[in-house]
Amino acid sequence: MSEGNAPEAPAPSPGTRRPGGRTARTRAAVRDAVLAGLTEHGYPGLTVEYVAEHSGVHKTTLYRRWGDLEGLLADTLDLAGEDTWTPPDTGSLAGDLRALAREVVDAFTDPVTAASGSAIIAAAFQSQRAADALHAYYAERFRRCEPMVQRAVERGELLAQEDGIDAGALARAACAPLFLRLFITREPVDTHTADQSAAAALAAAQAGVFTPAGAGSGTGTGAPTPPK
Amino acid sequence: MSEGNAPEAPAPSPGTRRPGGRTARTRAAVRDAVLAGLTEHGYPGLTVEYVAEHSGVHKTTLYRRWGDLEGLLADTLDLAGEDTWTPPDTGSLAGDLRALAREVVDAFTDPVTAASGSAIIAAAFQSQRAADALHAYYAERFRRCEPMVQRAVERGELLAQEDGIDAGALARAACAPLFLRLFITREPVDTHTADQSAAAALAAAQAGVFTPAGAGSGTGTGAPTPPK
Repeated sequence: MSEGNAPEAPAPSPGTRRPGGRTARTRAAVRDAVLAGLTEHGYPGLTVEYVAEHSGVHKTTLYRRWGDLEGLLADTLDLAGEDTWTPPDTGSLAGDLRALAREVVDAFTDPVTAASGSAIIAAAFQSQRAADALHAYYAERFRRCEPMVQRAVERGELLAQEDGIDAGALARAACAPLFLRLFITREPVDTHTADQSAAAALAAAQAGVFTPAGAGSGTGTGAPTPPK
Repeated sequence: MSEGNAPEAPAPSPGTRRPGGRTARTRAAVRDAVLAGLTEHGYPGLTVEYVAEHSGVHKTTLYRRWGDLEGLLADTLDLAGEDTWTPPDTGSLAGDLRALAREVVDAFTDPVTAASGSAIIAAAFQSQRAADALHAYYAERFRRCEPMVQRAVERGELLAQEDGIDAGALARAACAPLFLRLFITREPVDTHTADQSAAAALAAAQAGVFTPAGAGSGTGTGAPTPPK
């Protein structure tokens, strides 16, 4: 889910041709430096000086183009959201949800990605721009989960509901207990907690719980109807 | 769920008799000042000076007894956890879970409690002692949800499972999407999201998903068995 936050390979040296050209290369180098700084120093702790030193982009350029540290953080999230991530496609909704939940566990327990991902979530408590960027990042992530539910309906694993199925709510439910444990109750997460979260979301989907907000049939009473 | 964080009525004036006596009174006054400071200034922003001024307890006493700001935060959570909160008892598991989820929404949308509760969650990102205290607070909260599940089994709303039902996992599932929306994806929460979270957790419980970790039957395959 969050592997888009992972620092990618170092940007190629100046002069290397690359799709997107110099601007994209600079932006990626700055993003890498932001993620490295968050991993090393957390938030707060990251400084524009660190980003300048580790990206090779001059501090005055950083201030001119990104404004400040908040702008750097927000753009790092914006760039992460521009990746090609798609939800797991394992052949069954149960498998897809399990893989999705395990992606969350992996992202926040893998030493390469865990610290920067957690630091960005922490930053959103202090910075409205980071919060807005985080909101947009996850809104897009969960929006991309719609085909997962569509496939499940086509395979007959979920019955189509009159008002539709809120795929985002289902995907959020599959991941939510993991985020709760990681960032609120501060409890460990592992394969068991991931699989249980996924299984709970699946059972709820099968029971027709994920009726879209404002749908006529009301919350949790959305009785499945046969596919049309 | 978090109304234990709510600032209570101002501590009685010195000389007023009160169960627990002077020490408990001082501790409560300090707790009230911490919560007021978190509401007013957030975290970071709260200072020992603020707590001294608003509690009437001298700064040197605060440092001597609580060590530092982290100690003050941790004790505020410890004290909140010593309340008499019990989970809702509405007569049905569906109603109990709905009321529980709505408590979370209320706690983090009510202007009296929302800011301090959110600030404590933010503080846990910066302070290990605050994180430990938050962990203990929620562990105890969710532990207290066990009778809710026991009542549901006794009423026949849930079938007893061979390995037992993980009441804490069920209660966490009912609340988790709300915490996800509040503190990670930064999306609004309301009665609809609360009721949907509760309905999803209920459906998962009815499907036998909340098998305790390490139970023989494995995650999500805990088939309900008739009560013995």
